Amino acid sequence: MYVGVNIRKVIAKYDLDRITIVTLASHSALQLVHGAKKEGFRTALIITENRRLFYEQFKHLIDFFIVVNKWSDLCKEQIVKKLIELNSIFIPHGSFVEYVGLDCAENIGIPLFGLRSIFRVEANQHLKMDLLAKAGIPTPKHYNLDEEIRNLVIVKLPGAKGGKGYFLALSKDEIIKGIERAINQGLINKPSDALIQEYVVGVPAYFHFFFSPVLNRLEILGIDIRYESNVDGLRRLKPNVLERIGIEPSFVVVGNIPMALRESLLYKVYDYGLRFVKVTRELLPPGIVGPFCLEGIIEDDLNIKIFEFSGRIVAGTNLYIQGSPYSFLYWDEPMSTGRRIAREIKLAIKRGKLDSIVT
Amino acid sequence: MYVGVNIRKVIAKYDLDRITIVTLASHSALQLVHGAKKEGFRTALIITENRRLFYEQFKHLIDFFIVVNKWSDLCKEQIVKKLIELNSIFIPHGSFVEYVGLDCAENIGIPLFGLRSIFRVEANQHLKMDLLAKAGIPTPKHYNLDEEIRNLVIVKLPGAKGGKGYFLALSKDEIIKGIERAINQGLINKPSDALIQEYVVGVPAYFHFFFSPVLNRLEILGIDIRYESNVDGLRRLKPNVLERIGIEPSFVVVGNIPMALRESLLYKVYDYGLRFVKVTRELLPPGIVGPFCLEGIIEDDLNIKIFEFSGRIVAGTNLYIQGSPYSFLYWDEPMSTGRRIAREIKLAIKRGKLDSIVT
Amino acid sequence: MYVGVNIRKVIAKYDLDRITIVTLASHSALQLVHGAKKEGFRTALIITENRRLFYEQFKHLIDFFIVVNKWSDLCKEQIVKKLIELNSIFIPHGSFVEYVGLDCAENIGIPLFGLRSIFRVEANQHLKMDLLAKAGIPTPKHYNLDEEIRNLVIVKLPGAKGGKGYFLALSKDEIIKGIERAINQGLINKPSDALIQEYVVGVPAYFHFFFSPVLNRLEILGIDIRYESNVDGLRRLKPNVLERIGIEPSFVVVGNIPMALRESLLYKVYDYGLRFVKVTRELLPPGIVGPFCLEGIIEDDLNIKIFEFSGRIVAGTNLYIQGSPYSFLYWDEPMSTGRRIAREIKLAIKRGKLDSIVT
Repeated sequence: MYVGVNIRKVIAKYDLDRITIVTLASHSALQLVHGAKKEGFRTALIITENRRLFYEQFKHLIDFFIVVNKWSDLCKEQIVKKLIELNSIFIPHGSFVEYVGLDCAENIGIPLFGLRSIFRVEANQHLKMDLLAKAGIPTPKHYNLDEEIRNLVIVKLPGAKGGKGYFLALSKDEIIKGIERAINQGLINKPSDALIQEYVVGVPAYFHFFFSPVLNRLEILGIDIRYESNVDGLRRLKPNVLERIGIEPSFVVVGNIPMALRESLLYKVYDYGLRFVKVTRELLPPGIVGPFCLEGIIEDDLNIKIFEFSGRIVAGTNLYIQGSPYSFLYWDEPMSTGRRIAREIKLAIKRGKLDSIVT
Repeated sequence: MYVGVNIRKVIAKYDLDRITIVTLASHSALQLVHGAKKEGFRTALIITENRRLFYEQFKHLIDFFIVVNKWSDLCKEQIVKKLIELNSIFIPHGSFVEYVGLDCAENIGIPLFGLRSIFRVEANQHLKMDLLAKAGIPTPKHYNLDEEIRNLVIVKLPGAKGGKGYFLALSKDEIIKGIERAINQGLINKPSDALIQEYVVGVPAYFHFFFSPVLNRLEILGIDIRYESNVDGLRRLKPNVLERIGIEPSFVVVGNIPMALRESLLYKVYDYGLRFVKVTRELLPPGIVGPFCLEGIIEDDLNIKIFEFSGRIVAGTNLYIQGSPYSFLYWDEPMSTGRRIAREIKLAIKRGKLDSIVT
Repeated sequence: MYVGVNIRKVIAKYDLDRITIVTLASHSALQLVHGAKKEGFRTALIITENRRLFYEQFKHLIDFFIVVNKWSDLCKEQIVKKLIELNSIFIPHGSFVEYVGLDCAENIGIPLFGLRSIFRVEANQHLKMDLLAKAGIPTPKHYNLDEEIRNLVIVKLPGAKGGKGYFLALSKDEIIKGIERAINQGLINKPSDALIQEYVVGVPAYFHFFFSPVLNRLEILGIDIRYESNVDGLRRLKPNVLERIGIEPSFVVVGNIPMALRESLLYKVYDYGLRFVKVTRELLPPGIVGPFCLEGIIEDDLNIKIFEFSGRIVAGTNLYIQGSPYSFLYWDEPMSTGRRIAREIKLAIKRGKLDSIVT
């Protein structure tokens, strides 16, 4: 649901000299408040009690702690009221929808930096892949269970669960068994929630973009590789040991590693980014705002297939709190994605364009 | 042996305007002298002749080269006298005890930055793991040879030898054979020198902390992954090739790779750090000073088990000579662990608290 | 062919206050123009139309776009004339010879930063390895097809093709088959074009050096690990899955990952660098100028064997556009290899030594 009208009303009453940048105390919150402070904003974190001791170390970066019992309390009337009093702009990061739920995320009556209508797309693997395909971005094939499947596939579960429950399969039998296991574990409700995708052989890479409606330009702010448990540890074991202990690889993202891309691939990746901006403008107006990430496999013939995207800031940007090899090409100062968001808000306020970057 | 009294006498005679920061020319020496210079200190390196050409490139960072025939000459009377004349504070890095021996390290009559009494604990894998357990930090199980052992285990040898001789075993037979080999190679003296530890399946990560007695706070200054020969090369070979050439994985640390942690794990890791500070204050007063490292495995259920620690600066901090994604959250300037040490010394001098950070 | 005399004539007519730094729009071009701008130079890119949209984002770093139909048009008279009018110094990066061909690279009548006579050596794997051996740098054994071969070997194809077509073999049969395949694919012309090299078991590392004729010193500016498709992705698959899908590892470089080296290995690596400088001065006068890279395997006994070199800037330096853990030891400011090149040119102009850094 698109709540643009209400949000405009909220903003109309804001004191633009006293904006507070707000997010949930997780994912990329430290980067976001660090960046917001660099640009001169007040900051607030929505936080649970058990995390408070940790984040209070950084109270020089955080003006307000708003303690909740559970994350979805964000949508409670008194919290929303408090946030509006603070002239809040909320930054939805990669854990946002998973933490507060789709309904709260879509309907909360405070201005969100970014494109609210993309949450619903992101929550559904099929809609996600459709959007990429409509953009003309190369993607892996995907299958229905009633099709013949003879290649290696990866089966993915919806939502930003950090890869939890993803599995590989070489036959339809293995797919069906794995999906049943996922249903039993409560990770999905029904078989069609899972996405059955061609497993592209190559190396993964995550491309961090930032689309600026204010400057009307697309920037590539960084690239990372994910560090996943347990798969990145299994390589330490001999094949025959692996076999004897019988452990299956799992793909839970626990960290990120920096990477620079072969420069002759950059212009291809940038073209994908432009296509993504264009398709969201057409199908999800006003289109993507701020950070997004295209997540791809680079094959050994140098083709790149995008297997997933994130319409918000991804955790891989945490590597680049002091700038990345790419951000320094645009900005002659340390520019994280978190700071870039705050810079965009600052520029938008200055130019009277705040309406164009919040939804 | 705790030499606090003598050290206090030595410091009492120091010219605090002319302190020299000293270390051995290895491990993290370049970072340490770079950081010391940034904070305005004089610096000296204890060095062997074969390394001199290399380090002399950086003579803008190094005021004095003190050439020794062998590292343990550090404890010779004339060297100690020279160091006292220079008003030296010695920084024991991760190779220190291995290079000069435990006796020299514990008894040398110059002020050491850090907690001298932890050397003895670190030299013994069993004492090390006991300290972590007493802190209430989750650790892998460890075994005695007379227990039943049915899981995959890793067998570790004492001292900071960069992983040399570590091996995996799937049965008691394999453990016993491996230990015999280590004794034959002179890596250990007797079976009980080895630590038999549950092999935790997940991914390794190394968490760099800094406890400041002067500011009374714990900072997380960085995270790294180790790059190990030959295990990180074997993944380049096909399983059947590996089998045919019959090479066993080895785990010798040759470098470090940067990493950022999933933010929702940071508060857990920080809690481990606080526990470590607390337990050392109780059991090894005055407790940890300055840098330490908790070395863990992140499992795919997001639990983290700590399998080792270092009570001093680790080599992984060399990645962050211009600051890490974490250090910029505390310090609005480039802050390596080496510079952080020098900053702590500077702050301690200013506030008359030098006694609280050297032992 | 050594074109020194002509190049001196060209430079003699240059307006040294209006030098333009030029390169091909690929590989490390962004780093090179970024660095050149930091040092106050004008910049130009030779570019093909399909890449223009991407590079025009960075027009604040690029003064002139010189569009060509194909890369080898660089050597056309009108382009050369234009470049001379711009008082151009051309930076040959790692893709240069591959893009324009050896003949153009060796004979183009504009000043090149670096050692032109090394192109011919680099184009031939045998000459390359000979140069390293003559320097006294440890290298893997290499074999002829008429020798007995019983170890694991890697078979390499000439030129900077990013690892394309490299393969492993465990017997002479496998070697012969692989070479035939490479000939059929047009990757090489005849069997002796391929280099059959002992496969050294350990971990790869790439050491970035910079030799400054102006300051007469060798700097180590960074270290990286390559990220290769598909081999760095295959580790994500279980051994039995790998076997069932029957995919062979390939080694196409698609990116780079930062790394810091164990400090006790640095002085060894630096010694290799010094040897490389010395051998090029003797055999390829005036000797190496500016960036070069030694590419090695670190074995688990801490020996390092160099299996390849690059006589120019390598793509791994793109990681360090804002400086590396090593460059900050030499320079108290952000110093990429690209900027270091521009700095060398600036220093050379100031000191009237431009002749000593271009060929």
